[in-house]
Amino acid sequence: MKKYAVIGTGAIGGYYGAKLVKAGFEVHFLARSDYEYIKKNGLVIDSKDGNFYLPQVNVYNNVSQMPVCDVVIISLKTTANNILPQILPVILNKENGIVIVMQNGIGTEDFVYSIVKHNRIIGGLCFICVQKTGFGHISHFDFGHISFAQYSKDNKPGQITDIVKSIADDFTKAQIKVNVEPCLGTARWKKLVWNIPYSGLSVILSADTKEINSNPYTRELVKNIMSEICTAASRLGYNIEKSFIEQMIQYTDSMVPYRASMKIDYDEKRPMEVESIFGNPLRLAQKANINVPLIETLYQQLKFLDERNVDWKVKS
Amino acid sequence: MKKYAVIGTGAIGGYYGAKLVKAGFEVHFLARSDYEYIKKNGLVIDSKDGNFYLPQVNVYNNVSQMPVCDVVIISLKTTANNILPQILPVILNKENGIVIVMQNGIGTEDFVYSIVKHNRIIGGLCFICVQKTGFGHISHFDFGHISFAQYSKDNKPGQITDIVKSIADDFTKAQIKVNVEPCLGTARWKKLVWNIPYSGLSVILSADTKEINSNPYTRELVKNIMSEICTAASRLGYNIEKSFIEQMIQYTDSMVPYRASMKIDYDEKRPMEVESIFGNPLRLAQKANINVPLIETLYQQLKFLDERNVDWKVKS
Repeated sequence: MKKYAVIGTGAIGGYYGAKLVKAGFEVHFLARSDYEYIKKNGLVIDSKDGNFYLPQVNVYNNVSQMPVCDVVIISLKTTANNILPQILPVILNKENGIVIVMQNGIGTEDFVYSIVKHNRIIGGLCFICVQKTGFGHISHFDFGHISFAQYSKDNKPGQITDIVKSIADDFTKAQIKVNVEPCLGTARWKKLVWNIPYSGLSVILSADTKEINSNPYTRELVKNIMSEICTAASRLGYNIEKSFIEQMIQYTDSMVPYRASMKIDYDEKRPMEVESIFGNPLRLAQKANINVPLIETLYQQLKFLDERNVDWKVKS
Repeated sequence: MKKYAVIGTGAIGGYYGAKLVKAGFEVHFLARSDYEYIKKNGLVIDSKDGNFYLPQVNVYNNVSQMPVCDVVIISLKTTANNILPQILPVILNKENGIVIVMQNGIGTEDFVYSIVKHNRIIGGLCFICVQKTGFGHISHFDFGHISFAQYSKDNKPGQITDIVKSIADDFTKAQIKVNVEPCLGTARWKKLVWNIPYSGLSVILSADTKEINSNPYTRELVKNIMSEICTAASRLGYNIEKSFIEQMIQYTDSMVPYRASMKIDYDEKRPMEVESIFGNPLRLAQKANINVPLIETLYQQLKFLDERNVDWKVKS
């Protein structure tokens, strides 16, 4: 049985890590602001699939005290990725350790590759409405499935590898709906089709998903943005069927009204994941001479808002 | 000596109307919320060019009590233009009356033409930082010149007509800097080059001109928007030199930090001039198959914000 490390015990890391613990896996959590609380009180998961409570979990605030693990789940905000070069070499099993990047946006797998120098890297794309609502307290509102795909250095469509299958098996055992995909790039760009319009507009317009979809102008704007992303993705070699746009909008209609995680970060004056969700795709498109005026506009608006949201600069 | 009517005694109508009064012109002001106050106390103008006070002015809250005038200045918000068909036929001298549209955006001259059915319509483009800061109280912070241009039904470049010259003379006598332009369309689109980025972003990002220009991302965004407007204008037949963009940005750098009038409307929960400044240019471009993704995005964002800013709906 693989030993798991969860790097970043926020909404995503806390929720999926706790599900793995509940299924009997050995999981070691790295926490920062929640460390003392979790150490004393454990983790509470309020979930639409059934609440549960883990009175005691393996939690650390210092990576040097963690055991070497077979699988390292990266569930930090991408804005904290600068700590990965200090962490991964210490806790990742050097023989056949696997890294799962459970983050938003694109670019982290490449960064992880530059640290670990091997291809045992998996992208984990989380389709879930979940939020940390208190110290050691995770609230899961809607959805919950993960798409796993193998990373390859050239970012080209590949195949479903054995390590992807083995990770998918573990998560399935933990009652998590899983699907596996052959192309990480396509999977990541498909996720951007949702993330870029809803995360961006939720912050810029201070609105939840329901408000954005209910107004005819922003509903149209969402479609325009999604269409631009699909076109850019296709030109980069990641084909996304046009029907996916309507599908994503209807998926959002079916969602409970939701404050995107970027909006929560903004409201709590934490840095936003502007670079991974907007900046990296923008630069990839620009490098390939693909015109993406809407992504660029949202990026510029968000950079302004992020930089003015100064509290996090003082803190970090 | 021409008799003037000012329809809408807000910042623009109050300021320029008061300057005309001060120069000895007979001016009749139509006011709404400020009527009682102005009737009792007159108009106070705090201006960077020298404060002045008009203890008594001809003010009305009912158009039927106003005399027929030779020149009617329309200084309503465009969102109130629906009252013009009731007003213009009543107060405009039928012989040779002139209408000056001193509003933001585009489209009002066409609307006025549909009411008055003659070409004695002039666009007055105000380059001024001015705000109504209290009942009957106007604060003039910066700039103040007006560009006048003759309206023609086909909206094509024309010439500087005698009525434009005569109006320019009157305003010059009133110590207002004036220039006259041969093409109203070009003048209006040049004004949009400033208005669209700064009015739009000031509301969307809740920022003043200095904040927008100081941040490198929004400064770039302003340039992108201006560039799109210039391209669209050129394709519509209104040529704007590319150097005008840098000129406008530097003009804004030189301005006192300024909350655009659209931002003031938004903050005070009044309807914003989204249609005249964004919607009308957008539709003109779309009709001519010109792609204007940035104008469209700002328009959609502003429509969302305007519609959510519900108080004015309840009021009106």
